Amino acid sequence: MNFGSIFLSEALGTAMLVLLGVGVVANALLTKSKGFNGGWLLINMGWGLGVMAGVYVAYKTGGHLNPAYTIGVLASGADQYAPGIDITASATIAYITGQLVGAFVGANLAYVAYKRHFDEETDDAKKLGVFATGPAIRGLRWNFATELIATFALVLVLLSIGHTATGLGPLAAALLVVGIGASLGGPTGYAINPARDLGPRLAHALLPVSKGVAAAPVREPAGVGGYSAEQIPERTASPGPSRKSSDWSYAWVPIVGPLAGGVLAGLAAQVLF
Amino acid sequence: MNFGSIFLSEALGTAMLVLLGVGVVANALLTKSKGFNGGWLLINMGWGLGVMAGVYVAYKTGGHLNPAYTIGVLASGADQYAPGIDITASATIAYITGQLVGAFVGANLAYVAYKRHFDEETDDAKKLGVFATGPAIRGLRWNFATELIATFALVLVLLSIGHTATGLGPLAAALLVVGIGASLGGPTGYAINPARDLGPRLAHALLPVSKGVAAAPVREPAGVGGYSAEQIPERTASPGPSRKSSDWSYAWVPIVGPLAGGVLAGLAAQVLF
Amino acid sequence: MNFGSIFLSEALGTAMLVLLGVGVVANALLTKSKGFNGGWLLINMGWGLGVMAGVYVAYKTGGHLNPAYTIGVLASGADQYAPGIDITASATIAYITGQLVGAFVGANLAYVAYKRHFDEETDDAKKLGVFATGPAIRGLRWNFATELIATFALVLVLLSIGHTATGLGPLAAALLVVGIGASLGGPTGYAINPARDLGPRLAHALLPVSKGVAAAPVREPAGVGGYSAEQIPERTASPGPSRKSSDWSYAWVPIVGPLAGGVLAGLAAQVLF
Amino acid sequence: MNFGSIFLSEALGTAMLVLLGVGVVANALLTKSKGFNGGWLLINMGWGLGVMAGVYVAYKTGGHLNPAYTIGVLASGADQYAPGIDITASATIAYITGQLVGAFVGANLAYVAYKRHFDEETDDAKKLGVFATGPAIRGLRWNFATELIATFALVLVLLSIGHTATGLGPLAAALLVVGIGASLGGPTGYAINPARDLGPRLAHALLPVSKGVAAAPVREPAGVGGYSAEQIPERTASPGPSRKSSDWSYAWVPIVGPLAGGVLAGLAAQVLF
Repeated sequence: MNFGSIFLSEALGTAMLVLLGVGVVANALLTKSKGFNGGWLLINMGWGLGVMAGVYVAYKTGGHLNPAYTIGVLASGADQYAPGIDITASATIAYITGQLVGAFVGANLAYVAYKRHFDEETDDAKKLGVFATGPAIRGLRWNFATELIATFALVLVLLSIGHTATGLGPLAAALLVVGIGASLGGPTGYAINPARDLGPRLAHALLPVSKGVAAAPVREPAGVGGYSAEQIPERTASPGPSRKSSDWSYAWVPIVGPLAGGVLAGLAAQVLF
Repeated sequence: MNFGSIFLSEALGTAMLVLLGVGVVANALLTKSKGFNGGWLLINMGWGLGVMAGVYVAYKTGGHLNPAYTIGVLASGADQYAPGIDITASATIAYITGQLVGAFVGANLAYVAYKRHFDEETDDAKKLGVFATGPAIRGLRWNFATELIATFALVLVLLSIGHTATGLGPLAAALLVVGIGASLGGPTGYAINPARDLGPRLAHALLPVSKGVAAAPVREPAGVGGYSAEQIPERTASPGPSRKSSDWSYAWVPIVGPLAGGVLAGLAAQVLF
Repeated sequence: MNFGSIFLSEALGTAMLVLLGVGVVANALLTKSKGFNGGWLLINMGWGLGVMAGVYVAYKTGGHLNPAYTIGVLASGADQYAPGIDITASATIAYITGQLVGAFVGANLAYVAYKRHFDEETDDAKKLGVFATGPAIRGLRWNFATELIATFALVLVLLSIGHTATGLGPLAAALLVVGIGASLGGPTGYAINPARDLGPRLAHALLPVSKGVAAAPVREPAGVGGYSAEQIPERTASPGPSRKSSDWSYAWVPIVGPLAGGVLAGLAAQVLF
Repeated sequence: MNFGSIFLSEALGTAMLVLLGVGVVANALLTKSKGFNGGWLLINMGWGLGVMAGVYVAYKTGGHLNPAYTIGVLASGADQYAPGIDITASATIAYITGQLVGAFVGANLAYVAYKRHFDEETDDAKKLGVFATGPAIRGLRWNFATELIATFALVLVLLSIGHTATGLGPLAAALLVVGIGASLGGPTGYAINPARDLGPRLAHALLPVSKGVAAAPVREPAGVGGYSAEQIPERTASPGPSRKSSDWSYAWVPIVGPLAGGVLAGLAAQVLF
């Protein structure tokens, strides 16, 4: 399969994943939305079923949708990224650029779907939390460890599934993401995918998400990004980003942590299988 | 398959879908019901599993249950609506009329199942919300955009599933609807299906849903229809329908938005596959 | 397959179903239980996955577990209850007696599992609600209609599944029961199965469930049985059973309603397939 | 398959199970976590999907992950633990030691993932509850009965699944664990697996989980371990463990109860199949 086909497939699939994933956080966080305060399991289901939807759309490229998985497959010593797609530098770049572009596009679509809810939302921390992940307790080394462990689990199980005769296909991946979110999403909001965090964070920086609120009187520090539905306790943001910031100082954690976890999972799979 | 068989299959399947779908909203919204305030995920599950049930009943016609999907298949340039059913004008009409009639019938069955709860419910906005969708923040162009995007996602993934070797069948469609509801249902209550909204809205207009309340003293404006379980914040209904209205001024949005989304998804699939 | 094998298989499967089903209601209703107030979806999941578990245990008899389904298969004009089991009067009796005995046994096992929680629970209506279903709004004809419609939906979809190439097996039945509970369980607590209600109601009548509370000072009328977790509003029980009663005046509804629904679904399937 | 391969497979799979299982309890219990107070179903889903993930990782050894299941297979008179693995004393030891070591490792990984949340948590009972199970109402004989019944159900259904043509594989086991947790987890927190309880309890005893709190002024007795999210009512701990204790006096219940249940299920399966 050529560069363009891989790019398009992964971009469309990742756009679908991020449209549904960012959408569910918007639904749970933005006031007046019908799923407001819908709970952590709702958020887990939205992201998990976003994976299912995205994998179906990107079925012919194996539905990677995630640079950490692509890198994990590479590190596992596999021959192919998907049936008919050999592992080459060009294919790797097609996968990852497609994922990043798709994630950016998906976040923009979710913004359009929730446009009026963003307009009426006054809490900038929530708006950032819809797009990008953020730590519940800031401490970048431990946040990094959490992302590494969660992504290690994700990629190792995905690689394991490839060695079974399971007939579940995209459903297994979807449920795995539900489970990892339920179990390991507590501290950092489980990026477990560099594209899932970077693409929407870029969209947040470029879109006029917070423009109407800039003129509002100063409120107390709104805390760090990430999901902050009311049932989730306020975080003691140590430094925390300034208002309207896209919190770029945290952005490396959900990129490097997942990539490291993916590589380690690939190496572990090499030993195991 | 002849016109009558297609009509009957789609009508029964869509009746099953709408019986369970309208039922779950009644369960979550109407006071004294055992699932009262059951949450957004409960509503998503009810609609999603309604799709699963309906697809099984209408299995021989491919379980479309949704004019937006039927139109999407047409726009995708496919040869058949289902194995053994060629795409013709007659078949198209059989599908869509079956879906509309079935949705109307299903809404009536749900009304019977919850009869006493409708009788004892005093909030007309909730009663309308059980039958028809409505916006959380009224603004018809943005509401249209939300329905278009959500239905585009639905139909594109459904068409994608048709190009895979998935063995999940109706479960994949069910979970997809759970996911789209969880993620993109926040602003408009996700009609994503013209029959799902028009059939029950017609039932609401014809049934004596609000008759007992007409004589009640005037209460403050009850807001726009759509789900309004207590955990969902009150909406600032700009104009909003009058009491006892079936909010026909909104009714074109969940018809035209999904149809537009379905056509675009069909065209996208034509490019992709 | 002989009478005894059918009886044993259905008895064990139905015991498993009712153990998990009564268990989840105990978990959600009885104070001090870890799933206390776990919500309607939790209850739906417990019953649905109880069906899955029971169907696996009774796989060789087709996992009926429900007289309404057995009668529905009979009414549908099928040749067999399951592969290798012809439809005869003897087999029918074996199925139904097995289901009733199994349901009684399962309710007793659930009682043992939650023994201390029953001992410490002071609300007799809740204790009855753990075992037997009851209406949210008493009105036996409408309650009957709800049970009939819900069971019609259950059996028609189950019979439809038998005409498809689905590979989901017990999972489809499980999810269908989750969906019907979510959607149509609001008014009566969805018996949709005479054995599910009669077996545990008998267990409630025979077990010393309420003995410690009999001596307690009279409290205000506790309302009718059925699930009554706190998030579910109090019911305006018109007549209602007396304390310590097993509400036998209601018991015919969850028997006759489901049987009628099952027969109608069987006849409908005869027309359809 | 040799001892080391069995050991490694089961250790990795059980580590994955316990990482996700202990993780979801940490997420639901520890303050500031994003899934705080996420509810009983969230906890059930985390453990259930942990089973799915673990079974995929340990696919080649049949994904036992649980001494009670291994012993149950043994008691059922089967020939093999998994395709290609005969039942021998050596294999039995490899399975069980792998499970215990894996559970210990998984608990440590979950501790790292939630490190900062443990540091900031001041309630020692919650910290213990993240690792080990504990009774809602202490009474060891009834607690034992609950664990026996729940594990009997688990193992009997798992053995039944092995006699069907189900294509669900690890998903069936996952959903079964969701269901048993939802239904029978109320009284004791459903260990239903000696390794799941003993491994993390040992980790709790060895890790510096409560060190920062030791110097804190004496608070009222914190009650027994086990899940204690706020929505779950306080328990009337009769004796209860002292602060910082790992409640070893209870530890035999979630070991002996599940083993007894597993053996009984194996014997029952021997009769049935």
